[in-house]
Amino acid sequence: MSLSFAQRLIEAVTASGSLLCVGLDPDPGKLPPDLARSASDPDGFLAFGRRVVESTADLVAAYKPQVAFYSAHGREAELAATIRLIRERAPHALVILDAKRNDIANTAEAYAREAFDRYGADAVTISPYMGDDSVRPFTARVDRGAVLLCRTSNPGARDFQDLCIDGMPLYRHVAKRAAADWNGRANLMLVVGATYPAEMAQLRAAHPELWFLVPGIGAQGADLAETLAAGLDASGAGLLINSARGIIYAGGGTASGIRAAARELHTQIQAGREAHTRSARRRALEPLE
Amino acid sequence: MSLSFAQRLIEAVTASGSLLCVGLDPDPGKLPPDLARSASDPDGFLAFGRRVVESTADLVAAYKPQVAFYSAHGREAELAATIRLIRERAPHALVILDAKRNDIANTAEAYAREAFDRYGADAVTISPYMGDDSVRPFTARVDRGAVLLCRTSNPGARDFQDLCIDGMPLYRHVAKRAAADWNGRANLMLVVGATYPAEMAQLRAAHPELWFLVPGIGAQGADLAETLAAGLDASGAGLLINSARGIIYAGGGTASGIRAAARELHTQIQAGREAHTRSARRRALEPLE
Repeated sequence: MSLSFAQRLIEAVTASGSLLCVGLDPDPGKLPPDLARSASDPDGFLAFGRRVVESTADLVAAYKPQVAFYSAHGREAELAATIRLIRERAPHALVILDAKRNDIANTAEAYAREAFDRYGADAVTISPYMGDDSVRPFTARVDRGAVLLCRTSNPGARDFQDLCIDGMPLYRHVAKRAAADWNGRANLMLVVGATYPAEMAQLRAAHPELWFLVPGIGAQGADLAETLAAGLDASGAGLLINSARGIIYAGGGTASGIRAAARELHTQIQAGREAHTRSARRRALEPLE
Repeated sequence: MSLSFAQRLIEAVTASGSLLCVGLDPDPGKLPPDLARSASDPDGFLAFGRRVVESTADLVAAYKPQVAFYSAHGREAELAATIRLIRERAPHALVILDAKRNDIANTAEAYAREAFDRYGADAVTISPYMGDDSVRPFTARVDRGAVLLCRTSNPGARDFQDLCIDGMPLYRHVAKRAAADWNGRANLMLVVGATYPAEMAQLRAAHPELWFLVPGIGAQGADLAETLAAGLDASGAGLLINSARGIIYAGGGTASGIRAAARELHTQIQAGREAHTRSARRRALEPLE
């Protein structure tokens, strides 16, 4: 019997001993020049994916290929091949297709087929703007998950997500609805950007049971220690920390550069988790005032 | 010199004498059985597109292929070929890629390249949840446009779009921001569902200059006369009325069935526009009370 998404997520984190998610954002203008450019892989997309996955497989809980970077260049076949490669080389790792899909019910079902059947992803990122019937097709399968945009890491996140309704910003309404109605199969995560740790801390306090996918570490400049303090759950988990550009182009995009960057972030995350667990234990032992 | 998007839009409406937009949502389970199933077009996607376009070219201002229905089955090549076919057979018509894209700036740029460079679309639908930097890459080219989700036609539209901030629902804030900051090149339209005519009337009153792309007529059951009364601008334009399932599968998906359905909706829209213009003229002639 296949595992549920919730079980797969725990297994990915346990097997790797890691909360690290590596984003695959292949930009032909930034790929290292030594990557093979064969007729079947003209831009080196697959060679790039292979290098990242082989350099990091034991360090990561998840890979997050960004569809836009493949589809801008008509490289769907390379995306599919990269995902197959992840299954071979890092069978424990989750594949989260970063696609930010959002559409009415019958179209959302087509997008779910794209992510889950065509690409075989474990989860897909989605946007909440169109509401209930645009979300449910992505959480209908217990063995697949959805990662819902909540409080994103970009500057524009403020424009609508922070608008205040009945004393609570829109993104908190999104999280509340997600927790109440869309997580019945324990297969819904939230995107919560690391660039806003205060907002993350509020979300963690309100939703101790939800997992967050966290962009913003690395190229977007957020602070890892602040992020872990704000977002880790009581067990020292509950977060997948994503880094793309900070890892995949590190050291000129060489295998050793990529591995060193991934290992460094992995080590920092583990240190932060241990500190968090120690401090939680201390708090538990303190006498009540 | 190439036309601006705003000029292309006017030309498309003028050349066709139509506000009709036909949605291309090819569902392999619904395509008529007689469509050719060759090795190069196994699901009949291209034959379907050809039939719809050849049956309706003189009746429509725009075609709106829905990416999800192609990408669910790995049919990007058929999507590209369908768009090339529209350019040949209906050179006046706009191509609006329905993709609801939404991501941070550098990823949004990749999605803009997908829509505008890879597929050569005139416009692409986008979602506002991630704010300013997720929108601007789609409106940066004066000869291409973006169609921003505002008040959508689906039941879930109520969940977040209607939440009230400072006395005004979220979708009105989206429209206000779009008009103020993102339409400097007159290349931004709004998605405004026909299923909520009262909301459309408010948006029209607040934004007389914006064009709306209107889903919800046909399979989703909205009333055309109400929609035209609510949404037409002072000149009897300002709307592109989309129908997909109500046209493309009409009469069993035969060429004559498709053409008859498109012609009927085209005729109804024209009649509604004429009534609207007559009534506007009457109002203009009425003595002030």
